[in-house]
Order: sequence, then C-alpha cells, then structure tokens
Amino acid sequence: MTPAAPTPAYRRLSVEERRSQLLAAALSLFANHAPEDVSLDDVAETAGVSRPLVYRYFPGGKQQLYEAALRSAAEELQHCFDEPRQGPLLPRLSRALDRYLAFVDQHDTGFSALLQGGSVVETSRTTAIVDGVRRAAADHIISHLQVTDPGPRLRMTIRMWITAVEAASLIWLDEDKQPPAEELRDWLVEQFVAVLSVTARRDPQTDALVRAVLADG
Amino acid sequence: MTPAAPTPAYRRLSVEERRSQLLAAALSLFANHAPEDVSLDDVAETAGVSRPLVYRYFPGGKQQLYEAALRSAAEELQHCFDEPRQGPLLPRLSRALDRYLAFVDQHDTGFSALLQGGSVVETSRTTAIVDGVRRAAADHIISHLQVTDPGPRLRMTIRMWITAVEAASLIWLDEDKQPPAEELRDWLVEQFVAVLSVTARRDPQTDALVRAVLADG
Repeated sequence: MTPAAPTPAYRRLSVEERRSQLLAAALSLFANHAPEDVSLDDVAETAGVSRPLVYRYFPGGKQQLYEAALRSAAEELQHCFDEPRQGPLLPRLSRALDRYLAFVDQHDTGFSALLQGGSVVETSRTTAIVDGVRRAAADHIISHLQVTDPGPRLRMTIRMWITAVEAASLIWLDEDKQPPAEELRDWLVEQFVAVLSVTARRDPQTDALVRAVLADG
Repeated sequence: MTPAAPTPAYRRLSVEERRSQLLAAALSLFANHAPEDVSLDDVAETAGVSRPLVYRYFPGGKQQLYEAALRSAAEELQHCFDEPRQGPLLPRLSRALDRYLAFVDQHDTGFSALLQGGSVVETSRTTAIVDGVRRAAADHIISHLQVTDPGPRLRMTIRMWITAVEAASLIWLDEDKQPPAEELRDWLVEQFVAVLSVTARRDPQTDALVRAVLADG
C-alpha cells in the first residue's frame, strides 16, 4: 500500500469518537482493497494513530475490525432501501437501486471480496451480516408491495431477483462498471417486473400484485 | 452421528479402488451432513476401514477429503449439463434442470452448507471449484444457443439466471422441497425466457436469439 498523507496531529477524542474514527479508516481501506491486502498498520496509518491504540480499541485485531467495518457498511447499505411509501412503485424501486449501485460503486473491491466467498476473513458471522442485508432488502420490497402475508412463490421470486441483482453487481464491477449504472438500473427494474409476471401465471397473489404494479405506472 | 452398519470384511483393493471407496464414503457423508458434523472417524466407519488408513490416503485429513469429495461432486454435477445438441431448445433446458434438481435433492445438506458460505471448510480452493461449475453451466447454455461471440448483456443475463437458479435451489431445500421439482423446473424455464426477453429489448443479439428460441418451440 502507498504511504499515507502526513500524520495529523493527535487530538483528544472521546472513546466513541476514537472508535468511529478507527472504524471509518478501516472501512475506507476494506472498501477498496481485498481484506488480505489490509494490515493493522495500514489502519493505524490511515487513522493517524499508533498500532497499539488500534489494538486497544479492537483487541481482536484485523478480524474484529473487519467485522465491525462490515457491520457499519451493512447499516449504510440498508439505508439505501429507505424510501417513502408514496408515489408509483417502480420509480421507488429505481431510486433504491440507484442508491444501491452508488454504494457498490464506492465499495467496489471490498464488495467483490466479500461476496465472492472464500476470503480469509469470512466466517459464519460475516455471512450472517450479509444474509441480514438480503433479508432486509426482501422485507422492504414486500412492505412496499403492501403484502401482509406473502406466499412461498412470491417470496421465492423476490429472493431470486435480489440474488440476481447481487450477481449483476459483481459482474458489473468485473466489467469495468459497464453498462452505465442508469441502464443497469432500468434493466434490473424490467427484470423485476418480468419475473413477477412469470410467477403471476401460477400464483394468484402475485398476479394481483403485478396488475397493481403495472396499473400504478 | 448414528453408528454405521456392521463393518464389511476387509478385502484387498487396489490403491485406486481404495481411494474411490474412501471418496464415495466421504461424499455420502458430506452430501447429507454439514461439514462440521462429519469426522474422519465417520468416514473410516462408513468405509469400513481404520482411521489410519484414511490418513494414509488423505494425509491432509478432513479438509483434503472435503475438497476431493467436492471435486468429485462438481464433476457429477457438470454431467447434468450434458445434453445432445438436437431438438427444440427449451426441452433441452428442462431435461438439464431435471437432472440438476435431482442432484440438489440427493445432496441436500451438503449443497446448502457449501453454497451458504462461511463454512469451516470453505477456502479459496472450494470457491474456485464452485465457480468452475457456474462457468461450465454458462458455457453449456451459450453453446446450445449456438452463439459464438456472446456480448456482455447476453452473458450477464445468463449468469444472473444461473445465480437465480442456485438461489431457488437453496430456498427449495429450505422449504422442504416445495413446490414439486417439476413445477420448479417449468417455472425456471419460464424465467429464463422472460429475462432473455427483457434483455432482447436493449440487445439485438439477444433479440435474435429469443426469436429463434420461441420459434423453435
């Protein structure tokens, strides 16, 4: 890794501020480097503090920092799904996808490393964090569709689409972010309607939903 | 784990036969139990041999056995995709999916543990084996579609659909294999046509393909 900018002067931070500062430094590194390429020294250098100070806050070292950074990224990602429950449904989905793709764009290397599996820092805990984000995405969609008791076919369709969006994001990063984010977003929204329409043929609940979504514009 | 059936009498096997026997025992265990619930003692007991004999063939212990079993399962899975290049395209896809879903059915616990990530035996090597199967699936589809130079949009669509099929398989196992395999298979084929049709709107290559597939029956 390249040397950091000149170390900023130490200043007294509260425990909470210091913790946030270290976490922000870790997140910025893990977002744009594979986890095996990030050392505690890098985190200390980026935060402008000593390595022992990093250890004092994160005695579990790199693994603990990675998990904390991941938890913080997961929270940020879940905020992408916050969308007022008003106006036509598909533009709401488009706006959420815009924020999601901007997140993927900003955390590219870390996003790929995390989701491609087999990473040195992957554990059942990191997997659980990622699964939590997937579940949150599905819950958001179901709540926007105003379905109180989604049946298995509808839930399966939504979870499959979310997985397909994840796959598309990874391929998109792999292909130098082509096609442009706006085109990818429109394409994903069209796929959402298409797979729901297929499910509608064999599921009355989904059929009613698709009619409502399409009537809604 | 439950005690195995009475140990079969030892008989002289060639090195290759013995290795295959141990691998088959490991595969049967890893297919239906989470990797953390399988011990080398279980493998020895299932194969009706001593633990030191297992170590002689697999000095890397459980991790090495797991990877060898995974490689053998990956080969078996790739055979599911073998389908003569004749007759209408969608029935070919249906037959391949039937074999794939039968494989998922027979290897249920191991399949889930493998793909859900964060497992104790997951490494960059196991991830590479799984990715190899995904790539083989995409190559098979592209070759059946008789496309020699698939563009990025077509490739992305096919890879997204393969990921969605994987997600559907995991959910299917999670939901006690409902809906029935035949219904799931038809649904997945319909989704294949639907997502290709969406891509066709923005990609002339895919558009020509979809017309050919639909004309073909």
